[in-house]
Amino acid sequence: MTDLATLNAVPVSTFVAALGGVFEHAPWIAEAAAHRRPFATVTDLFATMRAIAEAAPDGDRLALLAGHPELAGSAARAGAVAPDSLAEQAAAGLDRLSEPEYARFEAMNAAYRERFGFPFIVCVKRHGRASLLDAFARRLAASPEAERASAQAEVFRIAAIRLDALVSGEGPLRTTGRISTHVLDTAAGRPAAGVAVTLHEWVSDERAVLIAGAVTNADGRTDAPLISGRPVPIAAYELRFRIGDHFRKAGPALPEPPFLDIVTLRFGVSDPEGHYHVPLVASPWSYQTYRGS
Amino acid sequence: MTDLATLNAVPVSTFVAALGGVFEHAPWIAEAAAHRRPFATVTDLFATMRAIAEAAPDGDRLALLAGHPELAGSAARAGAVAPDSLAEQAAAGLDRLSEPEYARFEAMNAAYRERFGFPFIVCVKRHGRASLLDAFARRLAASPEAERASAQAEVFRIAAIRLDALVSGEGPLRTTGRISTHVLDTAAGRPAAGVAVTLHEWVSDERAVLIAGAVTNADGRTDAPLISGRPVPIAAYELRFRIGDHFRKAGPALPEPPFLDIVTLRFGVSDPEGHYHVPLVASPWSYQTYRGS
Amino acid sequence: MTDLATLNAVPVSTFVAALGGVFEHAPWIAEAAAHRRPFATVTDLFATMRAIAEAAPDGDRLALLAGHPELAGSAARAGAVAPDSLAEQAAAGLDRLSEPEYARFEAMNAAYRERFGFPFIVCVKRHGRASLLDAFARRLAASPEAERASAQAEVFRIAAIRLDALVSGEGPLRTTGRISTHVLDTAAGRPAAGVAVTLHEWVSDERAVLIAGAVTNADGRTDAPLISGRPVPIAAYELRFRIGDHFRKAGPALPEPPFLDIVTLRFGVSDPEGHYHVPLVASPWSYQTYRGS
Amino acid sequence: MTDLATLNAVPVSTFVAALGGVFEHAPWIAEAAAHRRPFATVTDLFATMRAIAEAAPDGDRLALLAGHPELAGSAARAGAVAPDSLAEQAAAGLDRLSEPEYARFEAMNAAYRERFGFPFIVCVKRHGRASLLDAFARRLAASPEAERASAQAEVFRIAAIRLDALVSGEGPLRTTGRISTHVLDTAAGRPAAGVAVTLHEWVSDERAVLIAGAVTNADGRTDAPLISGRPVPIAAYELRFRIGDHFRKAGPALPEPPFLDIVTLRFGVSDPEGHYHVPLVASPWSYQTYRGS
Repeated sequence: MTDLATLNAVPVSTFVAALGGVFEHAPWIAEAAAHRRPFATVTDLFATMRAIAEAAPDGDRLALLAGHPELAGSAARAGAVAPDSLAEQAAAGLDRLSEPEYARFEAMNAAYRERFGFPFIVCVKRHGRASLLDAFARRLAASPEAERASAQAEVFRIAAIRLDALVSGEGPLRTTGRISTHVLDTAAGRPAAGVAVTLHEWVSDERAVLIAGAVTNADGRTDAPLISGRPVPIAAYELRFRIGDHFRKAGPALPEPPFLDIVTLRFGVSDPEGHYHVPLVASPWSYQTYRGS
Repeated sequence: MTDLATLNAVPVSTFVAALGGVFEHAPWIAEAAAHRRPFATVTDLFATMRAIAEAAPDGDRLALLAGHPELAGSAARAGAVAPDSLAEQAAAGLDRLSEPEYARFEAMNAAYRERFGFPFIVCVKRHGRASLLDAFARRLAASPEAERASAQAEVFRIAAIRLDALVSGEGPLRTTGRISTHVLDTAAGRPAAGVAVTLHEWVSDERAVLIAGAVTNADGRTDAPLISGRPVPIAAYELRFRIGDHFRKAGPALPEPPFLDIVTLRFGVSDPEGHYHVPLVASPWSYQTYRGS
Repeated sequence: MTDLATLNAVPVSTFVAALGGVFEHAPWIAEAAAHRRPFATVTDLFATMRAIAEAAPDGDRLALLAGHPELAGSAARAGAVAPDSLAEQAAAGLDRLSEPEYARFEAMNAAYRERFGFPFIVCVKRHGRASLLDAFARRLAASPEAERASAQAEVFRIAAIRLDALVSGEGPLRTTGRISTHVLDTAAGRPAAGVAVTLHEWVSDERAVLIAGAVTNADGRTDAPLISGRPVPIAAYELRFRIGDHFRKAGPALPEPPFLDIVTLRFGVSDPEGHYHVPLVASPWSYQTYRGS
Repeated sequence: MTDLATLNAVPVSTFVAALGGVFEHAPWIAEAAAHRRPFATVTDLFATMRAIAEAAPDGDRLALLAGHPELAGSAARAGAVAPDSLAEQAAAGLDRLSEPEYARFEAMNAAYRERFGFPFIVCVKRHGRASLLDAFARRLAASPEAERASAQAEVFRIAAIRLDALVSGEGPLRTTGRISTHVLDTAAGRPAAGVAVTLHEWVSDERAVLIAGAVTNADGRTDAPLISGRPVPIAAYELRFRIGDHFRKAGPALPEPPFLDIVTLRFGVSDPEGHYHVPLVASPWSYQTYRGS
């Protein structure tokens, strides 16, 4: 990671070498931005790069789209894509597709390219698997004008995340979100410590995969948020709390099985840059949750 | 079903023919009870039959246990058990065991009989599958005195349910429980009608099976309880509410996916004769539940 | 109370004697309605009387307003008004005004009559004291056309309540509302019995008066609703629960003073014919309420 | 305020001048403590002063009690007491007593002194008015041994608060508590900003006095806790939220009066050094609160 102040001072070539990969195969954007230094904030830097891209001739803007790698495509598999894209696709599990899934993606990619003349581009870090498939299908049916705009918007989202990971300094970009929780015992009137919590993502209507786990501390919270420092993928999630174990230790004898043993809070994230605080406020016989601040 | 008043009046043989199957292969209990008529309430009738059984010589009481069919055993499979037992075991899915499961049950039955001298007896209607397996394992390790008592207690539970299904009248037995729910929309301040609700039983730590489904009426309730008229099997359950569909229709535009789409309420039932009212009190961004009355 | 079927059959004079007071000093409405018998439901009977009044010549309709007694006016004090009106004004405490208050009402009555040519008419049973004063002030500033309509609407509301009290039968009028509650102990997982509950009405921003009191039964409810069988006056109310006394008895030692001792639920009623079920769902350290069904 | 490091270094006389008033009319404790420097933490310093007092001869310990000023007594009124005590009594409104109240306090003081031989000593900052009167009456009836201990314990509580106000540094004393809140709108799924909140103390069963007020910020919280930096007096409190104003602005048309207009949360504080976070989580038709962390 480089400091903005440093980037403001280095030679153009160093600047371009540092930020050339922010826009896939399009270092001319970084080149043009280098000549508009200095930047007061990272946000300004990004806004400038974005404006440069938006003001470019149509052919260059189209090339920005056409040069983007296929989603989970042969190119990605073969390693012939820029390192950032490979990392992003891996995060969505798109590097671990089964043969049928892979064939499906290839077919969708081909259909999309056929229809629009450029690859399907999406900021995969902002989508869970189900959301990704939904978006692909939905956008495949959109008009060419709409897709030019959608694809370009996605290129900017990808670029913003990459830039945020490369440059530190004043006025950072808002590219990360958070999922956090806390557990409160309303029978005892205090936080519930030592409760095992797991976070799962519903990757399809029938299957949920484990994302993170933690045990609540003395304040009833987890030492770190369950997701933070990255966009929260658009998806349905589920928090599972082994609250029965807590009540077995904490209070008067409860029946077996207890009314509340494993409590599940299922919720949807639509805003990858949002903060989702989803607490569990519980007694052995009741609980509540809400989207908190 | 026969009326208590009628049973009080019929000849002994008719009485015995009607109630002889209440205790497996032991019509002598009904025979003795016939001579203690009339009974003011069904509860009195049962109490008398129970007292007759408890006061019988040890050999007769042991025979009451020995004569009980194996749980999912060859006898049950072959249809060579009294009709009530077959029906009860079917309810717990014990007539649909796979070969490995069947072999396991046979082995456990043999081990139990070997240890205690009578079959493993449990009122299967009061247990979900997981609870049944737990009970089997737990009781296999108990002392002979404890098991004489447990087995006899189960015989009485089975008998109570059978009697309750055979005789109507004053002072009925409390042998049935209930699971019910209602849905309240706290953003609108009124019941949520038209919400699809399903009830599932966790038959193992990983698998939940659909038990019942309904759609809430204008009062936010289901026309009938989700379980009623029978004991509620001891198990972990899950109510699933498609509350997202309700909020999509009911109010201002919400994001996709919505914060609340499918809400799951997972709870344990430990009292088969209990009333479990588990409501969902929800806004698009919060919900609560509690064991209600 | 007379049965609708009976009223359908009696001579016209008997009918008029029974229902002549439904519209203040205007028995011609009952007279005309008598000739349109029989009525299938009480609702039909009222609809007919209403239609007769609405279709009458303007002079008659104005007389219907002019003949109505002053609110808490000299006439009412002197007892020179129809018995129903006196009873209605007493219910709102308007027969117990202090001299300054009385003088104020007289002044407002005079101003209203001066402006509109008929007395201020309002169905007092549907308003708490604060709401009544608000309505008086608000309507005093309305246009003559609006007030002709408002006053007539109030005459019909008053008539509906009187008819509902006089005639029983199929298809009753909806003229009554309800305030009810129940108390649930979420630490114990069952209803809280024996809890003292009082209902108060805020008659001004600083003063609340006791309306009703009860103790919860074994089901956590009060044997009868706190208000029922009459319209619930438009007002701000407050339920007070001595829940601290319950938790002192029910569970583990709590500090003094306890976190929850007297819990107050303050809520507004805008619909006198509505059902307001306002429960208290509480543990020693938390509680919730909502408008329930 | 002086830094602990500084106090550790100054001459004994300076140390005594700074801390001599921590124990009323007993600078010998500070004198003895000066000779046990240096202290690593403020807590150690206090513990040492306390140990010195506890180890003193009975006569000195009794003098520590006897030298303490009367509660709201003539001495206090006449200003003949050490400045800290005057400030403390003013905080509890004991300097604004009416004549009858004053006479009552004088009588109770006299009765107490008569019975026990020293004045009634209580850390008034830790008690609301009602709690103070309760404590006075309760302790008046206690045994002499119990009161020697209670009075001495109160002297130490008073001393701890005074020392905490005089000395800053490592390992501070825990002598302050907090009352805070936040408001969450569960219909909109975000904090409720701009809500007027007031905190009141119930000084008697019928009268509540305003303690603090604030308006919630963008995060639904008040910029500072409603009480902080001092012990929270043992009392019953009430938070009042003008939530109706918020919902009128925020959402779809609601009836008048709204179901929720002014919401009151009444709760008790038993631990003056505790943190009482009492949030309001509300929709227009429901709300919850709990003792949070």
